[in-house]
Amino acid sequence: MIEPLTAVLQAIDNNREDALERLFQLLRFPSISTDPAYKQDCRATAERCVATLGEMGFRADLCETSGHPMVVGHDRPADVEGKLHVLFYGHYDVQPPEPLELWTTPPFEPRLDFEPENGEVIIARGAGDNKGHFSTFLEALRAWKLAAELPIVVTVLLEGEEESGSHSLPEFLDRHGKEITCDVTFICDVVQWDKDTPAIIVRLRGIVGLEIVLTGPSRNLDSGQYGGPALNPIRTLVHVVADLHDADGRVTIPGFYDGIVQPSPGEKKQRAALNFDASAFLGEIGLTVAAGEEGYSALEQLWERPTCAFNGITGGYQGVGSNAVIPSKASAKISCRLVPGQDSKKVLASLRTFIQSRVPQDCKVEFRETEGRSHTAFCIDPQSPYLKSAAEALKEEWARAPVLMGSGRAVPIVPELNRTLGMDRLPVRFGLDDDRIHSPNEKFNLRNFQKGARSWARIIDRLARLS
Amino acid sequence: MIEPLTAVLQAIDNNREDALERLFQLLRFPSISTDPAYKQDCRATAERCVATLGEMGFRADLCETSGHPMVVGHDRPADVEGKLHVLFYGHYDVQPPEPLELWTTPPFEPRLDFEPENGEVIIARGAGDNKGHFSTFLEALRAWKLAAELPIVVTVLLEGEEESGSHSLPEFLDRHGKEITCDVTFICDVVQWDKDTPAIIVRLRGIVGLEIVLTGPSRNLDSGQYGGPALNPIRTLVHVVADLHDADGRVTIPGFYDGIVQPSPGEKKQRAALNFDASAFLGEIGLTVAAGEEGYSALEQLWERPTCAFNGITGGYQGVGSNAVIPSKASAKISCRLVPGQDSKKVLASLRTFIQSRVPQDCKVEFRETEGRSHTAFCIDPQSPYLKSAAEALKEEWARAPVLMGSGRAVPIVPELNRTLGMDRLPVRFGLDDDRIHSPNEKFNLRNFQKGARSWARIIDRLARLS
Repeated sequence: MIEPLTAVLQAIDNNREDALERLFQLLRFPSISTDPAYKQDCRATAERCVATLGEMGFRADLCETSGHPMVVGHDRPADVEGKLHVLFYGHYDVQPPEPLELWTTPPFEPRLDFEPENGEVIIARGAGDNKGHFSTFLEALRAWKLAAELPIVVTVLLEGEEESGSHSLPEFLDRHGKEITCDVTFICDVVQWDKDTPAIIVRLRGIVGLEIVLTGPSRNLDSGQYGGPALNPIRTLVHVVADLHDADGRVTIPGFYDGIVQPSPGEKKQRAALNFDASAFLGEIGLTVAAGEEGYSALEQLWERPTCAFNGITGGYQGVGSNAVIPSKASAKISCRLVPGQDSKKVLASLRTFIQSRVPQDCKVEFRETEGRSHTAFCIDPQSPYLKSAAEALKEEWARAPVLMGSGRAVPIVPELNRTLGMDRLPVRFGLDDDRIHSPNEKFNLRNFQKGARSWARIIDRLARLS
Repeated sequence: MIEPLTAVLQAIDNNREDALERLFQLLRFPSISTDPAYKQDCRATAERCVATLGEMGFRADLCETSGHPMVVGHDRPADVEGKLHVLFYGHYDVQPPEPLELWTTPPFEPRLDFEPENGEVIIARGAGDNKGHFSTFLEALRAWKLAAELPIVVTVLLEGEEESGSHSLPEFLDRHGKEITCDVTFICDVVQWDKDTPAIIVRLRGIVGLEIVLTGPSRNLDSGQYGGPALNPIRTLVHVVADLHDADGRVTIPGFYDGIVQPSPGEKKQRAALNFDASAFLGEIGLTVAAGEEGYSALEQLWERPTCAFNGITGGYQGVGSNAVIPSKASAKISCRLVPGQDSKKVLASLRTFIQSRVPQDCKVEFRETEGRSHTAFCIDPQSPYLKSAAEALKEEWARAPVLMGSGRAVPIVPELNRTLGMDRLPVRFGLDDDRIHSPNEKFNLRNFQKGARSWARIIDRLARLS
C-alpha cells in the first residue's frame, strides 16, 4: 500500500488541467469589492466558491454580512477525536483593474502566456491576489479527499472585502467566531522569498492612520491682499509635520519606540544570512540608497522597524500654473507602520498631542481617524510546532528551507483573528514579488500554482502527525 | 461764464441714469478671458468698448493680439502743444462667475439692489472689477467732451486679459508702445481706503512664483512593502520648505531682503496715523493675531514687507479615507511677494539654489516657473506733481485727503509699463474692500460709481493746470 501523501501528490499532478480550468472559471468573475457596481458579481463569485466547496464534499455556506458575503466551508471526518482543526483563509474579491488601457488582454479573461524569466504564467486580475493563491489550498484539499481521507479537521474561510478594508470581518467574527475557531490558521496572502525559495511570514507590521486637517483663515485669500499677516495653514502644516522626524530619520513622537519586541538572535542571524540585495530592491523602484532610519539596513527597516509616513498632503491651488492664494485649509494623511510591542492606541494618542501642541492659536486642528484600517503588529513564536511542521513540509517540496521572513504589509485577518479568537496564524504564500499584484497584467506563475498545491498537501500531512 | 469743471460735474450729475444704463449694457457681456468658450464674447465686449469710445468722439480701434484684442482710444484736441498726455487703463475681461449656485441672480444680468450698509449697489460679475471702475473715467471723459473741451490729451487702453495673466500685454506694448506713450498713466484697479476716504496706491508689491516638483521612487509604492527604506518625497518636501522660514517668520533664502527700499519717514508717519484696525482686518477672515514676520505690524507686512508663501501643496493620496501609499511625486507652489528694491531674478535664483541644495541624491527636483506672472514691485516718488494733483482733486470731491497706501496685489500693467515705456503710473480706485471682487454677487456701490466719475473730472481739471 502506498503512503496517502504519495497518492495525494499523484492526484494533484494528474489533475493539473482541471485545476487550471477551475481557476480560470473563478477568474472570469469581476469581483471588485470596492465598487458597488460589482455587488452582484461579488455575490456570484461567493456562490461559485460555495458550489466548489460543495463539489469537494465540504459542507459550505454563504454567510451574509452588512457588506459582501463570506464563504465558510467545513470538512469534519466521522472520527474527529484528537484531530487537529485547521482554518484556511483566502479572499475572493479583487482590486479594480484600472488603468484598463495598460492591460494587453481584458483583465477578466484569464489566459496563459509565456515569459522567459517565469515560464508559463496565468494572466488575469486576481490570478495571484488572491484567487490563484487560495486555489492552491483548495486543490490540495480536493486531492486529499479524492485520493485518501483528510487527516485533519478543516474549515475554509473566503472573505469578500479584503481589498476594501475588511469592514464586515469584525462583525462576522463576533457572530461566527465560534464556528470557525480552530487550532491554527493558514493564510495564503503574502509573498514567497524568491522563485525557488518558499517563505513563512513570522513578523507582520501593523498600521495606524490619521488625517490632520488644519484651518487657518475662514476662506481662501488673495496673497496680495493678505499675504504676510494672514496665517497660511500650509506653512503651519509643513512646519508641524517636518518635526515628526529628526535629522537621522528617527520618529520624534514621544514614546513611539516604547515596548518594541526586538527580534531574537536566531531571527537576526537568519536575516543576515539572506544577503538581501538592497541595491536591487531599491533599484527596481528608481532609488539607490536606503532612506529612512539611520543605522538600520533596508531589510531591518522593512521587517523590524516602525515608520511614520506621509501618504498624502493637500492644500491650496491644485491646478496647472499659478494662483497666488493663501488657502483656508491644508491637510496631511499620516500612517505609522507598527512592530510587535508597540501600543497602537498610545502611538495614535501621542501623535495627536504632538500635532496639537505645535499648532498656533489661530489654526484649528481636526483629526480624522481612518476606522477599520488600524491593525496591531504580529509575530509568531519561533518555537511553534505548526511553524516547524509547515517549514519541514515546504523544505520537502522545494528542496530549500523556507525563509522565515518579516513583512511590512498589514493583512487585516491576522490581527482580527488574534483579537477575537486568539488563534495562531501562519501566513504562507506562493506568489512572487514580480506578480504585478494590484497592477495591470497581474500574473501567477503556473509552476507556483502547481507547486503551491503540492506544498499544502505536504503541510496537511505534517500537521496530521501533530494530532 | 461758469468754470468748465462746474459744467462737467453738472453734466455727470444730470446723466446718471444714462451712465448706469451704459454700464449695464457692458455688464451683460460674459467676457471671461480665462475660458476659451467665451472668446467671441470677449471680442464682442471689445467691439462694444470701441463703439462707446467712438460715440464719445474718440478715435478708437480694436488692436489684435495673439490673445484677446486690446481697445485703444485717442482724443487729440486741435491744439496739443504743451498739453499733458494722460493714459487711462482698465480691463474689460472678468473672472469666471463660478460657483454659480451662490449668486442670487444670474451674474451677467446686472441689477440694482439695496444693502443697509452700502445703500444702492450694482450687482453683476464685473460690476466692480473692472467694468464699473473703468466706466468712472469713461463717464468723466464723456462729460468733459460734452460740457467743455478736454484740457489734456487722452489715451484710453482697455485690456482683455488682465484676469488671465496679461499674456499679450508685453507683445502689445512692444508693438504699440509708442502710440500709447504718455506723461502719466492712471489705473483704476485697486481698492479705496474706506467708504468715505479715497486712496492712491503709492507702493505695489511684485511677485515671483515657482513650482517645485520632487520625484522619489519611480512609481507609487505600498508603504507596507517599501515603507522605511524607500525615500518619501512628501517627507523631503516638507523638510525642505519648512526651512524657508525661521522661528520668527523671517524668510531664510540667502539675500532675500537685500536692497529693500525702506519707506520714507513721511510714509511711516502717515501709516501710523491711519490707526489701522488689524483686529478687524484679521477678524473678518477668522483670525485674531498677525502671523508672518515677527516685529512688523499687519499693515507694515502688507505694504512694505516681502513674503514667501505656499499657494499649493500636493502629493500622494488625495481621496477620502486612507491609502497607505508612498507616492512617487510631491510638489509645492511657492510665490514671493516682492517690495521695491528686491531683484526678482536674484530672489528666484536664490530660492532654486536653496531648494536644490537641500534635496537628497535619490530625489529629482524639477522647477516650473510660472511665465508671465512675475512682476517687480513699484513705488511712486512722493514728490510727483501728478500724485499731488490727483490727491488735491480727490480731497475736493470726498472732503478727505486720500490715503497714500501700499497694496500687496500685483497689477500686471504697472511693471509692464515701467519695463517698456518708463512712464509714471498712479493707481486710483473707487472700489471697496467688501465689493466681493472675484466672488459671487460682486457689487459696486452706486455712490462710488457716481463720485468716481466726479473724482476723475476733478483730476483731469487739476492735471490740465500742470501743462
